[in-house]
Parts: sequence; C-alpha cells; structure tokens
Amino acid sequence: MNSYPLLERVNDPADLRRLSRADLKGLAGELRDFVLHSVARTGGHLSSNLGTVELTIALHAVFNTPHDRLVWDVGHQTYPHKILTGRREAMAGLRQLGGISGFPQRAESVYDTFGTAHSSTSISAALGMALAAKQKGESRHSVAIIGDGAMTAGMAFEALNNAGVSDANLLVILNDNDMSISPPVGALNRYLAQLMSGQFYAKARDVGRSMLKNVPPLLELAKRLEQQAKGVVLPATLFENFGFHYIGPIDGHDLDALIPTLENIKSLKGPQFLHVVTKKGQGYKLAEQDPVAYHGPGKFDPQVGLVKSAAPAKQTFTQVFGQWLCDMAEKDTRLVGITPAMREGSGMVEFNRRFPARYYDVGIAEQHAVTFAAGMACEGVKPVVAIYSTFLQRGYDQMIHDVALQNLPVVFALDRAGLVGADGATHAGNYDIAFIRCIPNMSLACPADERECRQLLTTAYEQDHPVAVRYPRGAGVGVAPLPGLDGLPFGEGELRRQGRRVAILAFGTLLYPALEAAERLGATVVNMRWAKPLDTDLLLQVAQEHDALVTLEEGAIMGGAGSAVAEALAEADLVKPVLHLGLPDAFIEHGDPARLLALHGLDAVGIECAIRTRFAALLDAAAAPGAALRAV
Amino acid sequence: MNSYPLLERVNDPADLRRLSRADLKGLAGELRDFVLHSVARTGGHLSSNLGTVELTIALHAVFNTPHDRLVWDVGHQTYPHKILTGRREAMAGLRQLGGISGFPQRAESVYDTFGTAHSSTSISAALGMALAAKQKGESRHSVAIIGDGAMTAGMAFEALNNAGVSDANLLVILNDNDMSISPPVGALNRYLAQLMSGQFYAKARDVGRSMLKNVPPLLELAKRLEQQAKGVVLPATLFENFGFHYIGPIDGHDLDALIPTLENIKSLKGPQFLHVVTKKGQGYKLAEQDPVAYHGPGKFDPQVGLVKSAAPAKQTFTQVFGQWLCDMAEKDTRLVGITPAMREGSGMVEFNRRFPARYYDVGIAEQHAVTFAAGMACEGVKPVVAIYSTFLQRGYDQMIHDVALQNLPVVFALDRAGLVGADGATHAGNYDIAFIRCIPNMSLACPADERECRQLLTTAYEQDHPVAVRYPRGAGVGVAPLPGLDGLPFGEGELRRQGRRVAILAFGTLLYPALEAAERLGATVVNMRWAKPLDTDLLLQVAQEHDALVTLEEGAIMGGAGSAVAEALAEADLVKPVLHLGLPDAFIEHGDPARLLALHGLDAVGIECAIRTRFAALLDAAAAPGAALRAV
Repeated sequence: MNSYPLLERVNDPADLRRLSRADLKGLAGELRDFVLHSVARTGGHLSSNLGTVELTIALHAVFNTPHDRLVWDVGHQTYPHKILTGRREAMAGLRQLGGISGFPQRAESVYDTFGTAHSSTSISAALGMALAAKQKGESRHSVAIIGDGAMTAGMAFEALNNAGVSDANLLVILNDNDMSISPPVGALNRYLAQLMSGQFYAKARDVGRSMLKNVPPLLELAKRLEQQAKGVVLPATLFENFGFHYIGPIDGHDLDALIPTLENIKSLKGPQFLHVVTKKGQGYKLAEQDPVAYHGPGKFDPQVGLVKSAAPAKQTFTQVFGQWLCDMAEKDTRLVGITPAMREGSGMVEFNRRFPARYYDVGIAEQHAVTFAAGMACEGVKPVVAIYSTFLQRGYDQMIHDVALQNLPVVFALDRAGLVGADGATHAGNYDIAFIRCIPNMSLACPADERECRQLLTTAYEQDHPVAVRYPRGAGVGVAPLPGLDGLPFGEGELRRQGRRVAILAFGTLLYPALEAAERLGATVVNMRWAKPLDTDLLLQVAQEHDALVTLEEGAIMGGAGSAVAEALAEADLVKPVLHLGLPDAFIEHGDPARLLALHGLDAVGIECAIRTRFAALLDAAAAPGAALRAV
Repeated sequence: MNSYPLLERVNDPADLRRLSRADLKGLAGELRDFVLHSVARTGGHLSSNLGTVELTIALHAVFNTPHDRLVWDVGHQTYPHKILTGRREAMAGLRQLGGISGFPQRAESVYDTFGTAHSSTSISAALGMALAAKQKGESRHSVAIIGDGAMTAGMAFEALNNAGVSDANLLVILNDNDMSISPPVGALNRYLAQLMSGQFYAKARDVGRSMLKNVPPLLELAKRLEQQAKGVVLPATLFENFGFHYIGPIDGHDLDALIPTLENIKSLKGPQFLHVVTKKGQGYKLAEQDPVAYHGPGKFDPQVGLVKSAAPAKQTFTQVFGQWLCDMAEKDTRLVGITPAMREGSGMVEFNRRFPARYYDVGIAEQHAVTFAAGMACEGVKPVVAIYSTFLQRGYDQMIHDVALQNLPVVFALDRAGLVGADGATHAGNYDIAFIRCIPNMSLACPADERECRQLLTTAYEQDHPVAVRYPRGAGVGVAPLPGLDGLPFGEGELRRQGRRVAILAFGTLLYPALEAAERLGATVVNMRWAKPLDTDLLLQVAQEHDALVTLEEGAIMGGAGSAVAEALAEADLVKPVLHLGLPDAFIEHGDPARLLALHGLDAVGIECAIRTRFAALLDAAAAPGAALRAV
C-alpha cells in the first residue's frame, strides 16, 4: 500500500476521535501496513505490534488520552500507540542511538504514562495512578493492558490481589494472544484456553455486535452486557475470585466489538477486567504462521519475509551456552536446565528438543525459577538457571535467601550482561557484578571470549556452591570453543601480556580492546576471569610489580569488579594508584552496543586515552611511539 | 502442666508414628504446653506455633519424614516440628548465639529440608524437590505448608502456575489462619473467607469424621472424598483453576480430620491442595485474643501474659520513623504511606489510625509495593515505602526499573538495616548499601542516630528523585529527635571530631563507637551521613589532611560505603592507605546484635584495635596514653 491518507491525518488521538467508525477501520488497515513496513526498515518487534492495532485504536477512540492513563505492559507492543500519538515520523529512528525507544518512555511523550519493558508491572502502576487520582479528587480512567504471558508473573497477581479489594476505577485488559516470547506454559495459560474454548468466543462477538445495533442508554447497556457476559463465561472466573468484574472474551481485532464494550466499561465503577483475544502477527501471513520468528526480527523485505543469511553468522555467547548445556547434559544425567520463559533468547531450543524431561520452562517467573532450582539442588539434581542479567534482578532475594545462604550448587548462566543495544536502559545488564558479589557464598565468572565461556561454565558446574557466569549479548571476538568439557582452574586469572609500569586488569570481554590498547601503551594485561573470588595472589603480585593499576569491566563501576580490586588492595595494605574503567553511574539509552561502548570510552582507543590521561607521567618512558590519541 | 510423659518419649517422628490416635491427642496437649513455656522463657514466635501443633503431629504421623519432604513456609511456625524432631532440649537456646535457629535450617537437622524465613518460597522449593525425585526415580512425597498471608506473595502464584501443569506428587497445604503478621488484606483473603463461610467448614469436618469411622479401601475413600468435597466447596475454586485437586477446608486442630485426610491424599497422584483452617494462638487464651501481640513476644510469664514494662523503653528507629511519617503527613497532604504487610514492624499503626485514606497495606507483595509507589509518584502523590532492608531484595528489580530509571521521587524507609539479632542470616540487612548504590539516580542516607534519622527522612522527602534512608533494628544512642521537620543538607557529611593522622569515615550508627575509639586514638571522625552521593568535597579534604583513612559501616564491606570511598579516591587520583571496617563476606547467624557487632570487631574496642593494628606506625606519635587493646 504505502499510502496512508487516513493515518497522515492523525497527529494525535484527538484527530483519531474525530473519525467515523468506518474511517477507524480504514485507519486500522493503514496502521498495520505502516507498522509492517516501518519495522521491516528498522528491525524491532513485529508480531506483538500487528496484534495490537485495533486495540490501540479503540483505546484512544474511547478514552480521553492523555488525561486517561494507558499503561502498556512490557511495552514492545506500543508501536501503533507511538504512531498514533505523534511519533509516526520518529519511527524511522526506532531503537537507534538518539532515536525513539522501542518501549514507552515518560520522557518521550505525555502519552507514555509509565515506562515499561520488564514484564508484569502495568497493573501495579495503573493501580497506583488510579488511587492517586482518587486521592487528588481527579476523575480519570487508568487502564493496564497486559498479555497472557506477562499475567503469569507473580507481581501481576500481587497487583490483582491488591486491586480487587480497592474501589479504584481501574481497567485491566488481558491481551490474550496465547503467546509470550517463548511458547506458553503454565496453569494460567491452560485456564485461559478453557475460558476461550467452545462457544464462548463466538458468543461474545455476538454480544458486541448486537450492542452496537441497538444502542440503548449506556447504563442500561452496561447492565445487559454484564448479564449476558455472566451467562457466557464460567460461573466464577479466576479474575472474579480476585474481586474484578470480568467481561469477555471478545475479539480484539473487531472494532465493532471493542469500541462499544470499552464505552460501556467506562461507565462502570470499581476494578474491571476485560479479556480480549488477539492474534500475534495479525494481518501479515508470515508472522501469523511463525510469530516467534517475527517476534523481534532485524530488517527484512515484507514481500519476501525473513531470509536465512547466506554467510553463517559469528557464534553468539548464547549459542556457546546452548551447546555447552547439551554437551554437559549428555555427560551428566543429573543436569537440568531451567528458564523463565526465555527458551529462544537463552539458547535452549536444542536442549529442550534433546532433553525434554530435563528442561523446565517455568513461565515468566524469575523468583520461582531460582527457588525451584534451589529445591532441586537440595535433592542432588544439578540445576542450570539461564537468565538475563537484567531479569535476575527479579530473582535477587531468592538468589540470596534460597540459594546462597544454603550454599546450594546452582549455576546461573547470565546472558546479556553489560550493554544490550537496541533494548536500552531497561534491559541493561550493568549491575550484576555489584549486586552479586556482595552475597556471601556466591562466585562470579566473567569469561573473556567464547572459548572461556564454555570452559568457565564447566568450572561453575563442577563447584559445590553457587556460581554465576556472565557473558554479553551477541558474539565475542571469535575464539572458537574447544570441543571437550574441560574447565579452567576455579578463581584463577592469567597474565596475558607482560608490559611495564601500568597493568590493566580486565574482567570479561573487554580483555580484547585492553590488549590492543596495551600494545600501544606497553602495558601489562591480566585476564582476571573471576570477579569473585578475586585471584588475589595474582593481583597482589601484579600490583607489586607495577606502578599503577587499571581495572576494566563492562558493568557499573560503582561496586563492580574494580571496586573489588580496590578492596583487596586495601585489605593487603598495598597502596597503589588505581584507575577504574567501566560504565558510569547513569542509565544508558538504546543504540548500537559497539558505538555505546566507544561513547563510554570502553573501546581500545578510549581505554588507551583514559590511561594516557591519568598516567601520563608513568607512561612517558614506557609508551610505544606513534600511539594515536583520540580527538576528544 | 510442665510434665510431658508422652512428649519425652518422642525423640524423633518414628517414635511418634508408634503412638495411638488417643496418645497423639495427648501429645498435642503436651506439645502445646511445652511450646508456650519454652517461648515464654526464651522469647520467640508464639501465636503461629500454637496454631500448628496438630498439623505438625499429623504430618509426621502420616508422612515418612525425613524421606518425605516437609517445607514449612516462612518457618517461624516450626517450633512443634523442631521439638518433635530431636530438638526438644535445644529449644532452651532458641535464637540465641550458638543455639538453634528460629527458622528451619538444613544444617541443623535432616528434617529441615529447606531453609525458610522470607515468605512464600515453599511451593517453589517443594515442587523442585518433587520433580527432582521424579527425575531420580525416587518415590517420595513433597509437602509445602503455607499460610494465607504468604499465599498473597507473587512467587507463590508463580509456583502454583508452574506446579498445576506438572505431574509432580506435590501437596500444598494452605494453613489458613486469617492472619499474617499484620491484619489480612487483599482479594485472596476475602476469597478464602468466602470459601469458609456458611456450612462449608462444618460439613468438611463431618467428611473427615465419617471417613474415620468407616475406613473403606484407600482408593475408594479418596474418590468419595473427592466427590464429597466437590459438593461441599464452590464449583471451581481458585486453586482448581490452577490445576490442583482441591480438598477442604478442614479443621486443622482436629487430628481425626487431619490424619485420615492426609492418609488419603497420600494415595492421590498429581498436585494436591489441602485447605486447613487453624487459629493462631490456639489453646492459649491471651494469644487467641491478640495474636498480633503474641506473634513474637519477648520473655513473659504464661500465667500473667505480656506486661507493659514500667520504665519507658528507649525510642526505636522504627518509632522515630512512625512519628516522622505522621508529622510529615500532617504537613503535606500529598504524602502516602505504603507497607507490604508490615504495619506493626514498620511503625505505621498510628499513621494508619490517623490517615487511613493515605495508608496502603498491599499485602506481602514487595514487588507490587514498589511499582505501585512508582505509579503514584507519576501522578504527583508523594509515596513513602516502608520496607525492611532484607525484604527490599524482593523489590529490587522494581526499584531499578520502575523507580530509579524513571527518576521518580519515592522515599524508601529501610528498617532493620545491618545485623538484625535473633532472626539471623535470613533477615540480615547487610547488602542494601552495595545493591542500592550501583543504581543510577538512587541516593542512600545512613543516619547516625535518632535525631538524624528524622532529619534525613525529611531531606529524602524533599528531593525530586528516589532516596532510601537506612536505619538499624532497635534503639540508637538516644539522641532525641527535634520536634520540627527540618532536614539536613542533601549529600553532606560533617566533621565530628578533629584529630590527627588517621580519619575515621563513619556511615550510620557506628559513628558512636567510632567517636569512642577516636578519643583513645587521637583520630579524626567524620559522620558521612550519605553512602550515595558521597560528600566528595569533605572526603577529599579529609583525605588530603590525613595519612590514612578508615571507613566504617554496619553492612557488607564488599561493594559497600567503604568501597564508594575507595572509588572516589581513585577517581580523584588520591593515593592513600585505607582500612575498610564492616561486615565480612559471610552469612552471620542469629544472636544478640551488640555481641555480634563486638564479635565482628565493630564495637569501640574492636574499631580501636583494628586501627591500631593496621596503622601502628602512624599512631605511635598520635595515640593518647593508656588506650586499652583488646585481648585477641
């Protein structure tokens, strides 16, 4: 199509509210096409956004946004919302450095009432908004839109439990598309499928249509809707048990069902629950058939769809982990693999296929995942919990209280440690070194490349206590893993380059830019490998043999591995100049990871420059000639 | 009574399993009496333990412990379990240094299959055990016993959601006593009350009794039980929606109901849910009437009950917070107070009484509490979240992702920061400095005494960004708060004692022992007040004027405030010997807090001794004569 006559008239939701129902339907078609072509150009989330086109139009048509508050759970389904709220042009810069975020952001638009990205926060936030409005005597609606996947996380239930007894004017819309990123699991999902089975769905559609034709006074209609809905669904749904008034399920792609239903709900008091059924990928056949593949594609040609790249891509750390998991599972039948709904992202598809009885997808449930692993470890089974660094924040108490305190041998495979690129600040894996190393009994390995990643996973697995292994998103320098299952010595680093005067202590993959910088600086480089325990023997030896130390990590400097080095020096009463390089005390927005690293001085040139600036006097003698200084 | 003929014959559950039903009933009476007199002598949890006497006996009578696994949620209701599993004598040392823990501990007994204390972990752990047994081909039962309060936390639902679709032989027992530590709140609680209303409860009791009389073959009985139960309860309970087979409610103080029901459940496959109704404080009239007061009493005379101490106790930090909250609420109508089910513990009873419309108890739901606060803050309301340091670990992701990333002005009042005494390692508030200070936008204040606590709460409240204020359990040195609501300058410390050569930088209440030590050492003392932001101006000035620095905090050294000082010195390129004093990298068991501090060298003598040892050469000139060295 590529022509958007209606869409181009909608610069904010007020424009949309002036359109007729027929025009809104036309708008939906244009919006869906725009989303498809926009994502095909920039990459981003696709399936989820094709699924929310009509729901987004209906919400902005019925509610008085931004005065009424929409809180989109997870937020990667908000492209239609962004496009309709003045960011149509800005979609060209989606998820790129300086461009708009792939998630709602308060700083970006007044229509983005709450920044989301981690799942299942929307009901809590919207309830807070609703009760704040009540306290301030303001009349407004608060709406949380949450997927069936996000609904399985504990905090969604905590919020339902709290909201169900409140008198808040809160509407929770369950966007039931039978999917999160991984295939759906768990009892709630099965329950929702039961709710939708049989005639319920078809009947509910009829309810919507018949309401439209008659248009009685609103209150009367609401009552009828309630009675009809009561007859349609099960005697008491789960959500009614929680104190919500339940309406649905209705067709989330049918504006003639959505708009009248929402209009009526607007007039009801107290907590409302609307069950909407949508289809991920709706309207784009390829995505409908494979919503997982089209969950977050890179750039592609909409006419052709995704194409397997001819040249095999570099192996990612995720793939290294996935391969190690299969190999170790083959060797040791005690191994089990646990994921909180991240089978694809964590590289566990093959493990699931080959070892289905030892694969546990526990749903979006990081808290449960960690304690479940602890329970298994008590019985002599060997759990490997694969979890993104940023999502481990959800299981932090469980790591301390259930795993570390009992000193149970659980392996945590922390993917996406450090900067994550397009997902931005919400997904940053920048804090794990700081928040893990303060926990007694925990160890934390930081492999420098793919080979070490495999080796250190083995080392972690061989220990009798909990160990986390952190590795970044994407590929490393390309040091191919060795085929065997040999580990590296526990808690030991290695001297990688002998230089003079200044020693760089690298934790993780920044070892490689450090080696480059050291060539030009004549500096020593140590691959520390472990943020905890530190290899203090090696550290103290190096400290004694050099005039200054530089610590280097892809993580927050505050409390990080460099901080551990400083503590160890202080404990050994060794006084030495130290320069800490790492991520600053600031949230870092989305953008290309390599560029972001460079921006923060963590590429080879930046590292060299920082060391020269700090230790100019020391280096005057040692520096190699011709070393380039970056223009700052 | 004080004579325990039956109880003295039970040295482990095998002894108990040899007793007749009549003797088991006698045993229950003795056990209840023993619990009462034992807790009266040592202090500890009372109401909850009086409520679990019969349930504990029935579980050990029916299940083959320790081969079958019992996981007690929270675990403060396990005194009967401890007494029946070989720890009758050990109860005299309950929660005291070197004595047994007030919670289950794997290291303490083979019957303690999983260490608990933080709420709502039991279903996850028991499911992990059940599935591990299945994987290993071992036949055993796994039982989680969880209270209705603990059931409201998200992770319990995450576990139900996962367990309900598993084929694990898992039994979840809901110990429904209509209470957690604070009065019950939330939709789930209301729902449970509905389940129990009307004739359900009485009928279920009859089911239990009639089963006992006939004793048909087990499988037949199970079927009948199922059919009868189906008729008795609502058409589909919440728990059936989650895929559990629901049985109950039954009387949890009636061994004739409990034992046959449990026997029958033993023969059923798949996830089972037994709803048991008990009464907190059962059998001790005073505790029945006021289970909150008798939740965790100190020592008392069982004949008399709790007596208000004649001399008014020193004001605790909790009380300082409670008073500040009321005063600030009076001054600023935007203030709201939020607690995750800790009204009493956090000092919010008076606030609740005076400002009920601005008081939010959200249930045991730290995740929701934090994001709910974030939602409110978006609307210009001013939330104060009162939460124990150890429980904030549950809301860590929400603090990062929902509060700090959006830079929302939420005040976190962190009670029980540092060592907590009798509750031990599970409740340690030792990590908050490390895990908070790595979060961008967060600030963290560490008041040195009661007066500063009030002042710094005001300062925190006045900021436009999130601030946490950490203060320890119990009373401070007794510096009375000023009546007004004046704050202290944000981010500024103060020089408290001018000395020479060595400067002690104290964070929090250890300022006072530091001052004592400094008198004898001739050292300078700085009251740093803020772990983040650091007062770097003051720090660098002091660093330049002294030969060595000592950092001091009641928190983990790893990543803590001392670490922040080292980072700031490194950033300023200031090379100076530093000694970090604080808590070691180890879990610290229960015991008297003052003794524990002394054991870890954090009393005045310990601080003095550590500084003399490290900086002997420096101090030779400066030391005052006659300073005592501790005998090590």
